[in-house]
Amino acid sequence: MTKQNIMLTPGPTPLPPEVLEALSRPIIHHRTEEFGQVFVDVEEGLKRIFRTKSPVYMMASSGTGAMEAAAVNLLSPSDKVIVLSTGVFGDRFAAILKAYGVSPIVVQEEWGNAANPETLKKALLDNPGVKAVFFQHTDTSTGIVNDIKALSEVVHKNSQALVVVDSVSGLAAEPLEMDAWGLDVVASASQKGLMNAPGLSFAAVNDRAWTAVEAAKLPRFYFDWRTMKKFLPTRQTPYTPSINLIVAQLEAIKLIEKEGLENVWKNTDELAAYTRKRVQEIGLTLFAKDPANILTAALVPETVDSKKLVAQILRETGISIAGGQGKLEGRLIRIAHMGYITRHDVDEGFKALEKYLPRKEKV
Amino acid sequence: MTKQNIMLTPGPTPLPPEVLEALSRPIIHHRTEEFGQVFVDVEEGLKRIFRTKSPVYMMASSGTGAMEAAAVNLLSPSDKVIVLSTGVFGDRFAAILKAYGVSPIVVQEEWGNAANPETLKKALLDNPGVKAVFFQHTDTSTGIVNDIKALSEVVHKNSQALVVVDSVSGLAAEPLEMDAWGLDVVASASQKGLMNAPGLSFAAVNDRAWTAVEAAKLPRFYFDWRTMKKFLPTRQTPYTPSINLIVAQLEAIKLIEKEGLENVWKNTDELAAYTRKRVQEIGLTLFAKDPANILTAALVPETVDSKKLVAQILRETGISIAGGQGKLEGRLIRIAHMGYITRHDVDEGFKALEKYLPRKEKV
Repeated sequence: MTKQNIMLTPGPTPLPPEVLEALSRPIIHHRTEEFGQVFVDVEEGLKRIFRTKSPVYMMASSGTGAMEAAAVNLLSPSDKVIVLSTGVFGDRFAAILKAYGVSPIVVQEEWGNAANPETLKKALLDNPGVKAVFFQHTDTSTGIVNDIKALSEVVHKNSQALVVVDSVSGLAAEPLEMDAWGLDVVASASQKGLMNAPGLSFAAVNDRAWTAVEAAKLPRFYFDWRTMKKFLPTRQTPYTPSINLIVAQLEAIKLIEKEGLENVWKNTDELAAYTRKRVQEIGLTLFAKDPANILTAALVPETVDSKKLVAQILRETGISIAGGQGKLEGRLIRIAHMGYITRHDVDEGFKALEKYLPRKEKV
Repeated sequence: MTKQNIMLTPGPTPLPPEVLEALSRPIIHHRTEEFGQVFVDVEEGLKRIFRTKSPVYMMASSGTGAMEAAAVNLLSPSDKVIVLSTGVFGDRFAAILKAYGVSPIVVQEEWGNAANPETLKKALLDNPGVKAVFFQHTDTSTGIVNDIKALSEVVHKNSQALVVVDSVSGLAAEPLEMDAWGLDVVASASQKGLMNAPGLSFAAVNDRAWTAVEAAKLPRFYFDWRTMKKFLPTRQTPYTPSINLIVAQLEAIKLIEKEGLENVWKNTDELAAYTRKRVQEIGLTLFAKDPANILTAALVPETVDSKKLVAQILRETGISIAGGQGKLEGRLIRIAHMGYITRHDVDEGFKALEKYLPRKEKV
């Protein structure tokens, strides 16, 4: 097995050559017509990918920054908020809210399960006056995908609450229809389905959410969407943007649109089905009961420490597979199959797993 | 005059080919030994450039993010704070503090002047119990450099306040000695003297400041240095870092250290003196009474709109020169001479200025 540079990790995902080339172009200044055009082209492209007519704000930050931006721009300290937690990233929403003095009602799902619309309905009826419901599109820590269309419907039928979706890992990989499904805010980031380097985050915000933004009392400056909105007509961001990443994002958007967003969803779905079949063929146990298309989480045998396993595979083969996060550290392997990850990459990952898993565990 | 791609703007500054090459390398995952080594090498290099033994935290954000991080990590809402404002960026510190409910005592200097240590002394004596004093190293909006050594000394002699320096535009261009000069927190960013793409920010925090971090009550999550400190021994950041930018930062640090930091300071000083001479030779008026080495601000004749002038120069020659910011919009041109900007670049800028300034204004 020759050493390769194959990434099967759920963010960052590998970068297409067109994106790498764009990253290395001589930098242009951001207060210029040339950059303004790139800025507009990226924003328009993102609107098509978010499936929305609402503006998409671009921030220089990790995805966690966009999650925080959603919290601080929509809420006041006394607001009642529900967080549907399906893993590490739902817990992160709760931690962000708590850091800002908001006490969320956390509806905790068993790890590996998607959020249950019936449980959400009960939580909404038990807690009248909820201002917003926060949940993940996909949670990479457990490999689940939420039925965000159904969850959004339950929110709108049973409350006036805003629907806030973290699609950092789901966007441009799993189907998402912001406007048609009534999602009020969708947060995302550059380094997963959007096939760009990490460091750029996004938030699409509809008019309904904007009313909340104007009333929100939580403190914010760097992540303040009101300032970003003021700058939008000038085709600029308030502060120096991640110029190279935005230039590269345009190339990645072009690649997605050349393939066609729905084909991207379909191909991701097929590669996911293939990966789940292969996981079972090598004798591992699928973890998620509601598995996402972006990545597959599998339990390793009790005798194996997955953290050591993936470290050994990386060291000896150059192939990056993710281990478990949070309370699943050491127990899970996670194989991503979104963005620029190909079937060949996945096959190489399985070759490595077959080689490095203890022999007795193999079929 | 053939069309060129010359940037004389004070951030982003042009990127050396070594940095561009590093930006376009296949991405590596951040939870790996390979990235951990890059992370440590960048942090160690930054410590040498900040001239400190204290840790330097890396954030995926613009420089404004690092300024906000300094505010929210050090303060509680009732804290008494002084901001020395010498232009747009001092005003930004004040705006950040106000957004978080802190009412700063703003000591406003006339634009073009550096902050006055005597005025600061009076403000400290008039306002006992000040928790922190915030000021810029250099303010690109007016082209001034503050005597941060003298200002720091005044703070320490007359109070227990922390010294918080925004060196976003000064670092690796103007002399700065964090430890020797008693600077408690120094914030910076990648896209100026550090010769990297924008989107990465830094904060060096000494032990004295750390006591304040642990006591600070302002809300924060994404910019929380306590979380970053916890992750430091693991050679990681809490959230997905700007991997490509960090990899590229290492190359830029190598270039700075190959030249030698003190030589960088000296060369910047010489190019600044040359630029000031040339500005006067073409009949423009130097704006800053305490001019920085990072850039030169000059007033254009009353009959000229500098915003239109620099737009025309960019359109017709490809050379980026900055106009004025805030209340100096239309009145100033600003020529940067830090980082990878060369004397050749500056000369091309002056050729363009001589061509496009109205004839009667030329010498």
